[in-house]
Amino acid sequence: MTEETPMSAANDNFTVAGRSYRSRLLVGTGKYKDLDETARAIEASGAEIVTVAVRRTNIGQNAGEPNILDVLPPEKYTILPNTAGCYDVDSAVRTCRLARELLDGHSLVKLEVLGDEKTLFPDVMATLEAAKVLVADGFDVMVYTNDDPIIAKQLEEIGCCAVMPLAAPIGSGLGIRNPLNIRTIVENASVPILVDAGVGTASDAAVAMELGCDGVLMNTAIAAARDPVLMASAMRKGIEAGREAYRAGRMQARRFASASSPIEGLFF
Amino acid sequence: MTEETPMSAANDNFTVAGRSYRSRLLVGTGKYKDLDETARAIEASGAEIVTVAVRRTNIGQNAGEPNILDVLPPEKYTILPNTAGCYDVDSAVRTCRLARELLDGHSLVKLEVLGDEKTLFPDVMATLEAAKVLVADGFDVMVYTNDDPIIAKQLEEIGCCAVMPLAAPIGSGLGIRNPLNIRTIVENASVPILVDAGVGTASDAAVAMELGCDGVLMNTAIAAARDPVLMASAMRKGIEAGREAYRAGRMQARRFASASSPIEGLFF
Amino acid sequence: MTEETPMSAANDNFTVAGRSYRSRLLVGTGKYKDLDETARAIEASGAEIVTVAVRRTNIGQNAGEPNILDVLPPEKYTILPNTAGCYDVDSAVRTCRLARELLDGHSLVKLEVLGDEKTLFPDVMATLEAAKVLVADGFDVMVYTNDDPIIAKQLEEIGCCAVMPLAAPIGSGLGIRNPLNIRTIVENASVPILVDAGVGTASDAAVAMELGCDGVLMNTAIAAARDPVLMASAMRKGIEAGREAYRAGRMQARRFASASSPIEGLFF
Amino acid sequence: MTEETPMSAANDNFTVAGRSYRSRLLVGTGKYKDLDETARAIEASGAEIVTVAVRRTNIGQNAGEPNILDVLPPEKYTILPNTAGCYDVDSAVRTCRLARELLDGHSLVKLEVLGDEKTLFPDVMATLEAAKVLVADGFDVMVYTNDDPIIAKQLEEIGCCAVMPLAAPIGSGLGIRNPLNIRTIVENASVPILVDAGVGTASDAAVAMELGCDGVLMNTAIAAARDPVLMASAMRKGIEAGREAYRAGRMQARRFASASSPIEGLFF
Repeated sequence: MTEETPMSAANDNFTVAGRSYRSRLLVGTGKYKDLDETARAIEASGAEIVTVAVRRTNIGQNAGEPNILDVLPPEKYTILPNTAGCYDVDSAVRTCRLARELLDGHSLVKLEVLGDEKTLFPDVMATLEAAKVLVADGFDVMVYTNDDPIIAKQLEEIGCCAVMPLAAPIGSGLGIRNPLNIRTIVENASVPILVDAGVGTASDAAVAMELGCDGVLMNTAIAAARDPVLMASAMRKGIEAGREAYRAGRMQARRFASASSPIEGLFF
Repeated sequence: MTEETPMSAANDNFTVAGRSYRSRLLVGTGKYKDLDETARAIEASGAEIVTVAVRRTNIGQNAGEPNILDVLPPEKYTILPNTAGCYDVDSAVRTCRLARELLDGHSLVKLEVLGDEKTLFPDVMATLEAAKVLVADGFDVMVYTNDDPIIAKQLEEIGCCAVMPLAAPIGSGLGIRNPLNIRTIVENASVPILVDAGVGTASDAAVAMELGCDGVLMNTAIAAARDPVLMASAMRKGIEAGREAYRAGRMQARRFASASSPIEGLFF
Repeated sequence: MTEETPMSAANDNFTVAGRSYRSRLLVGTGKYKDLDETARAIEASGAEIVTVAVRRTNIGQNAGEPNILDVLPPEKYTILPNTAGCYDVDSAVRTCRLARELLDGHSLVKLEVLGDEKTLFPDVMATLEAAKVLVADGFDVMVYTNDDPIIAKQLEEIGCCAVMPLAAPIGSGLGIRNPLNIRTIVENASVPILVDAGVGTASDAAVAMELGCDGVLMNTAIAAARDPVLMASAMRKGIEAGREAYRAGRMQARRFASASSPIEGLFF
Repeated sequence: MTEETPMSAANDNFTVAGRSYRSRLLVGTGKYKDLDETARAIEASGAEIVTVAVRRTNIGQNAGEPNILDVLPPEKYTILPNTAGCYDVDSAVRTCRLARELLDGHSLVKLEVLGDEKTLFPDVMATLEAAKVLVADGFDVMVYTNDDPIIAKQLEEIGCCAVMPLAAPIGSGLGIRNPLNIRTIVENASVPILVDAGVGTASDAAVAMELGCDGVLMNTAIAAARDPVLMASAMRKGIEAGREAYRAGRMQARRFASASSPIEGLFF
């Protein structure tokens, strides 16, 4: 038990849509070499919630083809169907309904409605509209959005169960481009905030958690590493490190150790 | 063994002065509330090398007072005496010799010769001179320096067994101010490079490791956290996360997921 | 004429709503000590477009009180009425109509619909709606928004004549928090892009122009400087410097002067 | 005189080695297409001090070849011979003495002793030694160094008339990598501090001046721009903008305009 921290990890679970999780790292299933690598990386990540792009991945709609659920047994993982590849309200809503059917009424989804194929930024107008429809239809909606604090709050007020601002464009690996925005979203929120998209390496994940986020969702940063399984382990530890640092309360930054060296006013 | 990564941690030891360590986190003993907190934080950090400021801490020179070695048994920890508080060559050299006597011939020391009391930056001229004396006298010298790649190489050429550039001023918690310099030092080095001073939180430690450093030494970032023991655990995981991410080979950062979006030439 | 650059400044005018301007610095009138300081700072800034918060500043609605137009003669300055302080569609639209009446049918306005009083972030949903109403009503709408490239494009498609993303929160002086987003907005745009809000000092203004923006609007950075008139001059030169650097085509950044030192892949 | 700022520029001269200059931009002569472009760029920069690499440029040592002084008349420009290409004390000292002979006893030089050909970082040990020799020999020594505050102070104490820390490696165009170090150097100094090397675009130059530097020396950033003459003008304005912003006293940065939003303690 030498890995155990003084404040028991059991006391620090993350809860979304009424269910509690020990891991704050959520992962995707795309871009791996094969299903075996997918399974090993997800295992190493410690993730308990795994997101699946319904329009790209077989979760039963294509009978007779390899089914991702074969390596992701639902008794072990919470499957989070997502609407990657949807550019309008209708296709996003339809995709969620298809997923619910295929997964026997499972109501948890990750909504993303994209604005264009180049940036993969969300279309927040369409996202808000789709979120309203899905919430009214009984879905538990985790929602991908930009890092605008006002939009984040509006998505919460619509009834989304978690808000997931981007750190940087999907697949960029650029890390958290605007930490102050993420911090503001966290400060204003009453639902879990998870960084979704843009994380590139373990320190990025740690920074997200140090900003007070409840979790991080990633895919490319693991799958496109030279050694995805080892990177999955790195991400797991990065998330835990950042979370513990957040809870431990970091030292105040200052220019020098001497008492009279505040950083305030020296904004470079 | 669920914490184990695919490439066994046993294969990734850190070696300095002929001895091998599993942990790449080195910690100090200053600024804690009491010896008990010191001991618990060091335990949680997983550190195997603990640095002690000989001019501030009793390692036997003051008989009858509490001895730090009582909570840091030498069979468990490698004690690394340091010359904190020394501003000239002579006092630094004398301090190392005193430590060697008190520690029964133990030859591993951390040399720091400071330039002024405000910044606590090293005086690299005096540091080079002291390092020459100590190496000639048979010490294994780990040496605190600035982040200048040329100086780092000169310290290596003198015979120092590890070079320890600052991330930021001692006690500042500002994180790695000049990652490109640290990277250049790492690329040029044939001895271990450890970041010493300036780390403020777990992601800072992870960044140091992702840059290819062999380890990180810290004190204030742990001792001055609201919960030092929990922060020690965070730092341990941050170091491991950064090391694994470095070994795993991170994805290339790009502006967008689309193939034709290099970041090159867009230096902001 | 020693100030003249080789490519005549006359060739580099900025055009919005069918009118051409030599200056790319737009300024506000708030927070000055008195009208005299306001006038001197605006003179030193070289601005030709001056924005006025209709709900806070008398442009004729309060007969018998000092009128800002007395120090900003319309034959010298283009007055840009703005909707600062409006938190919903109706009040923003009404404010624009009031301004048009007071200014004898002048149709150029700056629309801002704010999301909350703490962050002063825009409510982009309400902004899009108000913009549609105003464009349909014959206004030339310059519009304050967040730095989301999709929203920026939607505002352009609605018919706004200029899109004005924030650099950072209004009145923060934090500079451009997300340069990559601003760059993406510029690359995608067919209308002028001006940074609005968040600039703190002259280099911030230069950076905005180097990113390819058509101009910068600011108020607090000038009015809250210790010497507003000198800062106005600094901003003027910062804008010109950044614009010229953008047109001159900066050198490629690289790690070292040696040919084989690309920065690509070393994203820290 | 519309370019004139309220506090007359005549009151803000920069003085080095007993001579006063209006311009705070110092430029080099390397890497231009031809002497004509060199002359036009230097003219557009407004520079009054021009540095010449004695080992690469003919200032008279090669009779019968084009002489840079033909386009840089000494009655208009202060020629600043530099020791670029010198990697040891002797060659640097000899180069300065050669320059003094060729320039009829002119004692102002820029000393640089480089550490290696890859990074072009200074060898500060050798630099300190060469500086001592040159000061004793009656030279006015402006000295290129790293951004270490202690070294900068030691160079000042030796008697150098100006200290010139790097912003980033020579020829990199990376901008100011460690603004806090430059700021600390400025705060501690009694001689002029000029940033030398690493500036890439106009905003970088402005930042250097906003940090309180007395001037900036650059070469590649102008010569390697697509349009060097226009970039020279941009740099001139960037320097002036940054200087005026420094004198004007920038607004305090804060998270939001609201009074209670300090940035302190939110170091990301």
